[in-house]
Amino acid sequence: MRQRLTVNAYSEGILSGDRIVLSRAITLIESKLKNDRQLAGKLLETILPATGRSLRIGITGVPGVGKSTFIEAFGKHLTKLNKKIAVLTIDPSSKKSGGSILADKTRMENLAHDPLAYIRPSAAGLSLGGVARNTRETMLLCEAAGYEIIIIETVGVGQSETLVRGMSDFFLLLMLAGAGDELQGIKKGIMEMADAVAINKADGKNKIAAQQAVGEYQNALHLFPKSDSGFTTRVITCSALKGTGIPELWELIKDYAKLTTENGFFNRNRQNQNLEWMHGYIRQTLEDQFYENTTIKKAVKIVEKSVSEGNELPIAAAQKLLDTFLKTKN
Amino acid sequence: MRQRLTVNAYSEGILSGDRIVLSRAITLIESKLKNDRQLAGKLLETILPATGRSLRIGITGVPGVGKSTFIEAFGKHLTKLNKKIAVLTIDPSSKKSGGSILADKTRMENLAHDPLAYIRPSAAGLSLGGVARNTRETMLLCEAAGYEIIIIETVGVGQSETLVRGMSDFFLLLMLAGAGDELQGIKKGIMEMADAVAINKADGKNKIAAQQAVGEYQNALHLFPKSDSGFTTRVITCSALKGTGIPELWELIKDYAKLTTENGFFNRNRQNQNLEWMHGYIRQTLEDQFYENTTIKKAVKIVEKSVSEGNELPIAAAQKLLDTFLKTKN
Repeated sequence: MRQRLTVNAYSEGILSGDRIVLSRAITLIESKLKNDRQLAGKLLETILPATGRSLRIGITGVPGVGKSTFIEAFGKHLTKLNKKIAVLTIDPSSKKSGGSILADKTRMENLAHDPLAYIRPSAAGLSLGGVARNTRETMLLCEAAGYEIIIIETVGVGQSETLVRGMSDFFLLLMLAGAGDELQGIKKGIMEMADAVAINKADGKNKIAAQQAVGEYQNALHLFPKSDSGFTTRVITCSALKGTGIPELWELIKDYAKLTTENGFFNRNRQNQNLEWMHGYIRQTLEDQFYENTTIKKAVKIVEKSVSEGNELPIAAAQKLLDTFLKTKN
Repeated sequence: MRQRLTVNAYSEGILSGDRIVLSRAITLIESKLKNDRQLAGKLLETILPATGRSLRIGITGVPGVGKSTFIEAFGKHLTKLNKKIAVLTIDPSSKKSGGSILADKTRMENLAHDPLAYIRPSAAGLSLGGVARNTRETMLLCEAAGYEIIIIETVGVGQSETLVRGMSDFFLLLMLAGAGDELQGIKKGIMEMADAVAINKADGKNKIAAQQAVGEYQNALHLFPKSDSGFTTRVITCSALKGTGIPELWELIKDYAKLTTENGFFNRNRQNQNLEWMHGYIRQTLEDQFYENTTIKKAVKIVEKSVSEGNELPIAAAQKLLDTFLKTKN
């Protein structure tokens, strides 16, 4: 293992915008070693006052919707406006190793060579909870390093979108026109979480279908409950390939940030996210202590069978497991 | 306190369909006393083989949508078909006492006097978790007493719909036409949970607007992800006042039950609900042990302030609380 720096060396490097130190600090944060976790905790405390000033944009969409190309086009638009951006990707299903960094940089080659952009995929082999913690902490490090816009990308399947929604200020759903089949992969409820829906690949033969889709989604969304943010979800078209719709999307996001800053939602949402982060970590830790107990692990398997088949009452079974757990600790 | 019966007396009474014994058994189940809980546990185990054979229908909708009138009309339709039905109402926000039973019976006077119908509101002064446990256990008692259709009614605000969804086979959302404002109260994501949407009060001047709303919702819903059940969410109109649409709804529900029984979803869903019930109870108990600890209660209040304001890291704060909790137990 590569040698660790001191807390001061890490924090000074990060605060001065040193990308190499930033990368090493993220690796530190991803470590599961106890010493590393302690060092990471001290580092995060040190840089805390320099965090929180970015705009955090979550982006989701099923595979095939063109997320990488889109993020590259969107990212280049932002760096041309002289914004420092960081792109974090979350893919809990991924089994890829450190090599994925290269893979991701290949995916977004143009952006990867942009001195104003920093790209980092999530570490491999982690639980969803582990990925969430890493990404949130990485976000803080990037903010301390002066990145003004953090893009958090995730695949639109499983539970990672809820997670990303919970750490973003603005949540964008990428879709395709005529998406009957493509929708299958999207979890119910995701659509209603979006602050904006962008119909991607609105170019060439797709253009008319995309514009039609805008009308349909707009009609659909106005039937759904309004967001607490006070912002009405908007549907737009874009073509990452042609670069169309990207400047309009950025204007839309700025409108959102302005409105929610003025009406107080922006800060209230951040505060709630912090609290949810804390309580979520507590809940997760309590559950892990229970479910990772070796006696419980064995017992759960047996009990699950009889409960799911209706031969045992769920509450009685739960109580039995809780009693067993208590005994293993005495 | 009224005297308790023996487990045998309760179970024999319930299995023979004695409504008075059923009511007393539900009161037993609602009790928080330790002795009562033990007795309730034994009773549930005894009647378990006689449970699970009903069709469980969850119904939600914001106040003003006409839930009581609708359930009365729907219930009367079912009892005329010679079905035994039980109506359980969940209202976690309610502070009402035992007197609410009268109130509910007044709400649905016709149904309340129907010998084939049994109406029971949830007990007052309980947490959402408490309400959930009671309702699930009450449902089992009603099934053992021979009720073939269990209707679980909830208001369409807060978190109770997710709860009701989690204990129903079929989930119905009641809406009004031109519901722009009425929708405000509905939580995001509820619409996507529904197996059917019924536009209520489709009578008189509302009739045309209701039919138009059907088209709009139908269009909207086809843009959304399909359910795992294989059933395509349907939108219908009904008038509880005129009784129109009620027989069609019952046909629709039977179609749903037939389809999902044949494709295996019905049983799979029940099994998952049982498992979710067990794990939910475990999680809730672990959390309660933590958050109801007096030292933690005080500490949480202080920590929440500094975390939400961004002066303390959520994870560091969580860890501090977890360490404190561990110390109070040693």
